[in-house]
Order: sequence, then structure tokens, then C-alpha cells
Amino acid sequence: MAEMKAVILSICPEANIVDISHGIEKFNIRMGAFVLACAAPYFPKDTIHVAVVDPGVGTKRKPILIRTKQACFIGPDNGILALAAGRKDTEPVYEIANKKLIMSQASNTFHGRDIFASAAAHLAKGTLPTEFGQEIREIVTPSFAKIVRKKDVLIGEVIHIDDFGNVITNFREKELELAKAENVINIEHRKTKLTFKRRRAYADAGKHQPMALIGSHRFLELSLNQGNAAKHFKIRNGDQIIVCHS
Amino acid sequence: MAEMKAVILSICPEANIVDISHGIEKFNIRMGAFVLACAAPYFPKDTIHVAVVDPGVGTKRKPILIRTKQACFIGPDNGILALAAGRKDTEPVYEIANKKLIMSQASNTFHGRDIFASAAAHLAKGTLPTEFGQEIREIVTPSFAKIVRKKDVLIGEVIHIDDFGNVITNFREKELELAKAENVINIEHRKTKLTFKRRRAYADAGKHQPMALIGSHRFLELSLNQGNAAKHFKIRNGDQIIVCHS
Amino acid sequence: MAEMKAVILSICPEANIVDISHGIEKFNIRMGAFVLACAAPYFPKDTIHVAVVDPGVGTKRKPILIRTKQACFIGPDNGILALAAGRKDTEPVYEIANKKLIMSQASNTFHGRDIFASAAAHLAKGTLPTEFGQEIREIVTPSFAKIVRKKDVLIGEVIHIDDFGNVITNFREKELELAKAENVINIEHRKTKLTFKRRRAYADAGKHQPMALIGSHRFLELSLNQGNAAKHFKIRNGDQIIVCHS
Repeated sequence: MAEMKAVILSICPEANIVDISHGIEKFNIRMGAFVLACAAPYFPKDTIHVAVVDPGVGTKRKPILIRTKQACFIGPDNGILALAAGRKDTEPVYEIANKKLIMSQASNTFHGRDIFASAAAHLAKGTLPTEFGQEIREIVTPSFAKIVRKKDVLIGEVIHIDDFGNVITNFREKELELAKAENVINIEHRKTKLTFKRRRAYADAGKHQPMALIGSHRFLELSLNQGNAAKHFKIRNGDQIIVCHS
Repeated sequence: MAEMKAVILSICPEANIVDISHGIEKFNIRMGAFVLACAAPYFPKDTIHVAVVDPGVGTKRKPILIRTKQACFIGPDNGILALAAGRKDTEPVYEIANKKLIMSQASNTFHGRDIFASAAAHLAKGTLPTEFGQEIREIVTPSFAKIVRKKDVLIGEVIHIDDFGNVITNFREKELELAKAENVINIEHRKTKLTFKRRRAYADAGKHQPMALIGSHRFLELSLNQGNAAKHFKIRNGDQIIVCHS
Repeated sequence: MAEMKAVILSICPEANIVDISHGIEKFNIRMGAFVLACAAPYFPKDTIHVAVVDPGVGTKRKPILIRTKQACFIGPDNGILALAAGRKDTEPVYEIANKKLIMSQASNTFHGRDIFASAAAHLAKGTLPTEFGQEIREIVTPSFAKIVRKKDVLIGEVIHIDDFGNVITNFREKELELAKAENVINIEHRKTKLTFKRRRAYADAGKHQPMALIGSHRFLELSLNQGNAAKHFKIRNGDQIIVCHS
């Protein structure tokens, strides 16, 4: 949004602003979280990420600032930042509440401009995270940002189906290591057991062979080489995916 | 347009270019003017705004430069700049005619690149507004950029209907003060009288209650809390709206 | 793509990145090549252009770097760069192969980020073109980037039909000079002979008169003043166009 950039440049003229996406569906927090998580790791250290998929604007949901070792994340406390920040419990989160750091005529309808852009610009100019407001202990963590461990299995979910029908889940390499899923990944989807061989690239699998790889987004991706995995296995965005120990 | 940015950076490499919108409908001057007017107030002082919704390219319409206290506006003289510049009579307008400041191989079909971008870049580099051409007295002012005072009423019009059916008019706070419309706004639309209570935010009104507020764009907005005001009151973009003195 | 910008800024924080287009149809190399060729001439000297329309990602097609007198071009060797680079035989092309200049965890699926953006950033930082890899003699040159001379005629093709039905071909001024097509251009399209008068601007021709001009993109454009030339003459994108000597 141009207004957000305008506010940022008014406060911090030397800011270098990069658009991540304007194509997120209205109110689709899961999609926004996924797109942010894909892009964020490639930005320079200490980049300030701002995300504004915000169905709860005008309600009591808090504007927050997450400070991780790698970067800062600013947005509403609705889970939009959760996948990208991949926050450890020791990394602090602050409420953005300091009236001096947000726009005084703050409208109730455009927090992207009046709160998030303003806070991001002040942070870029050198304001410390601690100056924005109180530290918060609990933040909203939607199911798509959680991996639940239960006995011998890890429970996650589908966070994106791409144009080719590849199924992107919220498992990362470290969880697969936990499950010792090195060469073969055993999955349960709607009570059906599926087996995917791990590959380094699409070209490594035979035609229409099921395969699993850590995609360029760094999440576990389930594919059918030259085929549509989502259609074939009837997997939909948001579906629960269970990874069983090998 | 990339070509416009290319021309700007060729002339003024240190320019910081921000896209306001690429989503304006072809030839829709009203829409372009509204979007520019929403964004412009948030940019730093002395920002140079360039707008190129230009159905009259190749005709005699003049390229102009408006210098206000707050900013500079460059574009065709067809009203696209009118809402944003909100020009006072004492603020000068210049024709952009100096051949040294526009591209010599100026094509007849892409003034955005050959005239407007070039002029904006020279202005950014320090060329004075007076060097671009003669001062102009009269500029095109479409109905959407005018509020007409008639006896006891102010006549304006609808400049935008948003996705939620909120009706944005071209009245601003100062005109409402003139009409003494502090707590209640009495409107006439197609000979029907309507009354809107003024609110500071959507949440302040009961469900489906008509309400009026100065929106985040700084224009008068007529809404139905959690409803679609445009549909309910059968108001369309471009409709005349009369504000009666309270 | 945000990831590409992220990689560029991580390597070369002072880079000034300009988007040319995100609207190229998937896998449409011709369209990408045309859009790049329209924009490139307006950028400052030594601009680094990156293009990623890349249906062959993951196959043996090479990533290349073309160094012309005017600029650098980086992308896959599939013709996407051909129209814009307008390369002379003496201008060198290098394979991008040096592992130190591309991302080590190079995924097989996103060369835009892992190879092209990385190479562009290193080039911007001062790495010499010769350091990227071996010089290449032959690069892929699709038919849309070729003008073939045969006896008394020049054979080219249609590279774009614009929204108004104007037909843009791959002939440039220099080829028209070769054909001595100064005032009148004689064309053969699907064995039908057509004659277009050369004009400097649309306004110079009578209504519905066929006319030819060098458009703002610097290619030969065939038009019907205030009409749709493509429909009228049944010309489609990709059609062969023969220019006969006058």
C-alpha cells in the first residue's frame, strides 16, 4: 500500500522498502503467513517485516512486534507472523502501544498505515523494541504454525497447494529429523497411510512417482512427479497431516 | 510503468520512487484522482506526485505541474490531479512545455514516459517549477473535485464505493464545518432525504445503523454498520449528494 | 519476486531494484522478451537486467550473462534476453557457473532466486563478467528475435498485438532502411500483399487508414487509425511478416 510506504518514508527517509506480495486473499491469514515465511529467510539480517492481513482490525487484537535473532516482525497478533518468525520461547514479543510511535490521528480502519508502518519506521530509525510497549507472554499461534508431538507421531497440516498440485505442509527439516524420516516419509492423511520417498529434486523421481522433498520454501512438500499430488491423494489446504516415525 | 522509472533514474539516479497504484481502470480519471488523493497526504513534504490516467493523450490537453504548499503534482490537465492537489487559487500551475526538460524523441503515444516522468525527474534534480513553461490560470476541474455552495446547501458527489459498500463523497471536514454538520448530517440524494449520525468509528454505531464519518482517506463516508450502504440507499458512484445545513 | 530482491539486497545492499513486470504469462518467452525490449533502452547505461521466464528450469538450459555496450542481461538461455540485448556478434556471453557467485543451497526449482538474482547482485557489486564462467559462442535465438534476409525481402514476425489491435513486429528502423521503406511499407502476410503509409503519429492518418510507424517501443507497428488492425487484416501474434523492398 502506497500510504504505508508514504508513512515509512516520512519518518525514516532512508528506508529501503521491498514489497513481498499484494496478492494475498482478503482475510486469508494462512496464505499470508505462508508467503511471508517463504520470503523472510532470504532477506538480510535485522530486516523489519510488516504484515497486514488483519480481519480483526478494530477489535481488541493487539499490534505486536516480535524480535528474533534473525529479524523483526510487525503485525497484528493473529498468527500472520507465526510461521515466518518461527519464534523460540526465549525471543521477546512486545505490544505496540506507545502513542508517540504510532500516528496520533490513528483511524480505526487502517492500522497498516497508522500503526504498523509507523512502528516499523521508528524501529528502522533506531527505537528499541522495548520502547513500543509491554512484553507479551502468549501470542496467538494458529494450527498451521504448530507441530504437535503425540506418542510416536508428529501432527502438522497443509499450508499451501501450489499451481502444480504440490502439497506444502508445515513440517521443516528439524521435525523430519525428529521423526527419523530420512529416506522415506510415512504419512497419515484422513486415516489413509501414504508413503513418499525423499528426493533432492523432481527430476530424481520416475514419472507419476510420489516423492517428498524440502522445497525452496524450506517446508516439506509432497509431490507426484509430473502429476498433481493434491488431486491424486485428495489432499486439501488445511488438512491434517500426520508424520509417523520410520 | 518500468519505462517511467527508467527515465526518472536516468535523469535523477538518487530518486526514491514509490508506486501508488497500477490498478486504476483504463481512462477512469475519477478513480485515479481518488486513489491519488488518498495516498498523497501521507507522503513527505515536497514529494513529487506523477499521475498518468490520460485518455486525451495526443490531443491538445496540456501537461501541467501544480505546485502547492505541500507537494508537487505532475500529469495531464484533465482533472486527475484535482482532488489530491486541493489547490488554492494562489498556488501556481505551469504548463510543461520546455523541450529541454522532456524527452526529445517524445512519442505521441507515451507521455507518461516522455513528458511526465522526464519532467518529474528534472524537478527532483532541482529545476524550478517556473522553468517548465508558462503559468496557467484555468485548469480543468471535473465535477468530482468541486463542492458547489447554493443557498443553504452544499452540492458534491460520490467519488468511490468501496468493497464493503461504503459511500465515499468528495466532502471534507472543512465543508462539513461550513454546513455545521457536527453531530448529524442531513443529505439529499435523488430527492430523498437521509440522515446520518456522525461517528468516530464503525464500532460506535449499532448494527445496520446509518452512520457518517471522516474515513481514513479524509473524505466524508456514508456507511451502514455491518451493512452495505450503497445497496441499501441505492447510491452509485458519481451520484450527486447534497449536504443540507443543520 | 520478493525472494529475488531479498537475495540481491543481502549481497548488494546499495542496489536500486526496479520491477519491470509481473504480468508476463507463465512460460510465454515471446511476451517476456517483448516487454523487456520495450523497457530496457530507457534505463541508465550499465543497468543489470534480470529476466526469469523459464519453462526449462531444471533442464540443461544454461544460465547466461550477456554484456553489451549498453547494459548487462542475466537469465536463462532460452531467448528471453534476445530482443532486448539486440546483441552484436562481438559482444560476449558467459555461462553463469561459478559456484561462489550463486547460492550454495541452490534449489532445483527457483533459479530466479538462487542463480539469477545472486549473479546479478555480485555483478552489481563489481564482479567481472568473465568471472562467472566460460564464454559461450552460440546462444538460443528464437524466430521472434531474428530478421532473415532473402533475396529482395526481409522476413520477420509479429511479436505483440496491443489492446487496440495494433500489430507490433520485430522490425526496427535499421531494417526498414535496408528495405528502403521510407514512405511506404509493402508487406506480405499469408500471401496477401498489404501497403502501409509511414506516419509519425496516429493523428497524421485519416480515420481507418492503414498506417505504419515506429512505436514508442522502437519496433515497426502496423495500425488502422481508430480501428483494429489485427482484426481487420486477420494478423495474429507470431505470424510471419515479410517486408518487401520498395
